[in-house]
Amino acid sequence: MSKITPVLLAGGSGTRLWPASRKAFPKQFAPLIGPESLFQASARRLSGPGYAAPVVMTNADFRFIVAEQLDQIGIKHDAIVIEPEGRNTAPAILAAALRVAETDPQALVLVAPSDHVIPDSAAFAAAVEEGAKAARQGRIVTFGITPTRPETGYGYLQVEGQGEGALPLRRFIEKPQAPQAEAMLAEGGYLWNAGIFLFAAQTMIDAFSAHAPDYLEPVQAAVDGAINDLGFLRLARGPWKGLRDESIDYAVLEKADNLSVVAYSGHWSDLGGWDAVWRELQDKSPAPRGAVTDAHSTAIDCDNVLLRSDSADMQVVGIGLKDTMVVATSDAVLVAPMDRAQDVKHAVAALKGQGRKQAVAFPRDHRPWGWFETLALADRFQVKRIVVKPGAALSLQSHVHRSEHWIVVSGTAKVTVDDTVTLVTENQSIYVPLGAVHRMENPGKVPMVLIEVQTGVYLGEDDIIRYEDVYARQTGD
Amino acid sequence: MSKITPVLLAGGSGTRLWPASRKAFPKQFAPLIGPESLFQASARRLSGPGYAAPVVMTNADFRFIVAEQLDQIGIKHDAIVIEPEGRNTAPAILAAALRVAETDPQALVLVAPSDHVIPDSAAFAAAVEEGAKAARQGRIVTFGITPTRPETGYGYLQVEGQGEGALPLRRFIEKPQAPQAEAMLAEGGYLWNAGIFLFAAQTMIDAFSAHAPDYLEPVQAAVDGAINDLGFLRLARGPWKGLRDESIDYAVLEKADNLSVVAYSGHWSDLGGWDAVWRELQDKSPAPRGAVTDAHSTAIDCDNVLLRSDSADMQVVGIGLKDTMVVATSDAVLVAPMDRAQDVKHAVAALKGQGRKQAVAFPRDHRPWGWFETLALADRFQVKRIVVKPGAALSLQSHVHRSEHWIVVSGTAKVTVDDTVTLVTENQSIYVPLGAVHRMENPGKVPMVLIEVQTGVYLGEDDIIRYEDVYARQTGD
Repeated sequence: MSKITPVLLAGGSGTRLWPASRKAFPKQFAPLIGPESLFQASARRLSGPGYAAPVVMTNADFRFIVAEQLDQIGIKHDAIVIEPEGRNTAPAILAAALRVAETDPQALVLVAPSDHVIPDSAAFAAAVEEGAKAARQGRIVTFGITPTRPETGYGYLQVEGQGEGALPLRRFIEKPQAPQAEAMLAEGGYLWNAGIFLFAAQTMIDAFSAHAPDYLEPVQAAVDGAINDLGFLRLARGPWKGLRDESIDYAVLEKADNLSVVAYSGHWSDLGGWDAVWRELQDKSPAPRGAVTDAHSTAIDCDNVLLRSDSADMQVVGIGLKDTMVVATSDAVLVAPMDRAQDVKHAVAALKGQGRKQAVAFPRDHRPWGWFETLALADRFQVKRIVVKPGAALSLQSHVHRSEHWIVVSGTAKVTVDDTVTLVTENQSIYVPLGAVHRMENPGKVPMVLIEVQTGVYLGEDDIIRYEDVYARQTGD
Repeated sequence: MSKITPVLLAGGSGTRLWPASRKAFPKQFAPLIGPESLFQASARRLSGPGYAAPVVMTNADFRFIVAEQLDQIGIKHDAIVIEPEGRNTAPAILAAALRVAETDPQALVLVAPSDHVIPDSAAFAAAVEEGAKAARQGRIVTFGITPTRPETGYGYLQVEGQGEGALPLRRFIEKPQAPQAEAMLAEGGYLWNAGIFLFAAQTMIDAFSAHAPDYLEPVQAAVDGAINDLGFLRLARGPWKGLRDESIDYAVLEKADNLSVVAYSGHWSDLGGWDAVWRELQDKSPAPRGAVTDAHSTAIDCDNVLLRSDSADMQVVGIGLKDTMVVATSDAVLVAPMDRAQDVKHAVAALKGQGRKQAVAFPRDHRPWGWFETLALADRFQVKRIVVKPGAALSLQSHVHRSEHWIVVSGTAKVTVDDTVTLVTENQSIYVPLGAVHRMENPGKVPMVLIEVQTGVYLGEDDIIRYEDVYARQTGD
């Protein structure tokens, strides 16, 4: 029997977990629960004997993060597919199905978000096994979570009949009001819609043919016209950009008559807000009085609070708080009652309106070659910490408005300044005059850390002329 | 008529306004309300035609801060007196009285805390004028604030009789419980004890002779043995360290029978907690729904909150909060209900117990020559921003475990490395090898800013051998 191809949806940039999740580095890539990121935990869950290498659907901004995080946990991908623009789940899932069908139209595809928490891998694997039987018979299988509370934040699935294994789906139900949620919980036969789907590739293509045929031709063209860009599969922008923005639920599933549901009664969360993060952490390791803290936060006489600091340099202290979340990073802090968790996205919108950099970006800026962060920024100088991965190189570049002093503090740098190439090692420095064509590389086996001191009248990231770039970056990449 | 000598008490290191106030730089030196520090506003209030140059009572840690802050507002001091150890207000006030009496025993002395808010300078001056009449007749005059609410956080003064001007004091009343506070407010004839006193120097010395004679000899010895240390008056440690730790109220005033009270009905606050800061700011410039914010904080649907960030790099966001304080600095954030303001000191004690640097110190470390802050600290390297005042110099020093790269980013440095002296200007760098004897000076007219990159296996501040120091600093200074 052929293996199941996991399709991980990793293009989202939710703001409900701000300030720890931002557009530049959203929640699926952050270690919110435990040491691995949600994306890594999702990829690991869908790996092993029964699974083929995963397809990851993402966008240009996240491609290097995806590649690095898979590499860290030793999972080889089938493809990291770059959607030229976000068009919701319908075309992303069709593109993945078309790609898998090229090899084997009957191969099973498991589509899953990459930002959910499903700690019980064995129970989830058993549910997938049940689903696979139905999927091989031409069903589109959705997975429904057995509800444990009258949640109003999720959509529901109504099951037809009773019994084990895959059952027919009677209907989708939108996020309910509280009385309806309570009634469904009491009545039984309703499950939370987890947004996880299992189907044979051809089954999904046929469903699009029947219910959303306008997608087929342009998505096929985007897949056929995809270019391999340093190991990333860039879908063709032309056919993609005209696509309707629609979820797979609206575009296809709600109209299809071959849907089945497999109930999953293990633990699951979509981590849709800080209240959910608090609940997960409290479930995992109950804190006295529900006061969930971390290594950099202190709760004094608090009940049912989440006090969280992502930075060793930021100490959070809560006194006498109840049902409150305090989430701090090195450059922002959010404070709100737990029941206002869903309003965090409005706060992010407000900050964006004020032009605050914290709305979308982190101090640490991830690049294909490593990362950098600004340590000090003043009118006429800037200090950065730059970390370059072993074997990586920055682009060959020059600046019009600034000169740079580089001091290597860990590892060894290979530095090109105009026609001279120098090896600069720990505790050595080098000067890059204004206008000089220069490049920084790490030829070593350990990360290279360098302190850069820029001086000049203009210090923006856009004062850069690129001559060569091994990562084939385009403007704004 | 001789002028009044202000004696500013500036040795306190309260923790109730943590994280903005810490032992290393307490609230009187911070710009909590408006652009000047509370200390500066206090010094300014007690300056002008009727006043002699002030005497400031402080400790070794704060001496350079006091000198710099007076200099900034153009006030020349009579003396910055360094108490070898904190012994509460009784000996500090006696020492000041003895110093003033050396010149003129009948000269008036006005003792005032330096961390209170008294915005109406004219009304306060009028009260002082009333008090001076009584002080010249041998009375010890206290100033009482006309209460505006049944405050339980202050001591009270009960006045004898009614009328204008200085009235006899009947008795001191400890911080009351709420019912007693309400009764006093309703009854009238009670004032808040502001801890401000006016007397002729000899009157206070006589009061000590009568009521606390054991202080006289050692405090006189500490004043007589004081040494002038670069313009600071260091009281002799020997006689000082054996003194009883007692407030002027307990030691003398509660036993004296020559006390008068002048009522001050203008605005006053001791800023004894963040609730008081909120009240001041809200009084000064009422915010809609009482949501007091600053340039780096955003309130969404909040009522009666103080959202405060002292750093442009720290964005504070509150959603749906009521009666809550959120105070952030670049390295700590405090969140508490307004009515828990007095518990902040317990939080600081808890952090201190955990060994957190944020309990006592700020990232920015003030020194006589300027200040520095750590921008990045790792196992084997540290990056600092160092700002040196015009004309100032660091000590001539060497390190056993680290070498240093210095890059000047603003102004000009005069750098000594072993036998070589070099002028290093903007965008130039210099290397200080491990073990080299070196010194950094600012020979210019503008502040000099330098980025220091240290590398080595040990980077503690105590890896320093000092050869010469223009500030005559002792170990641990």
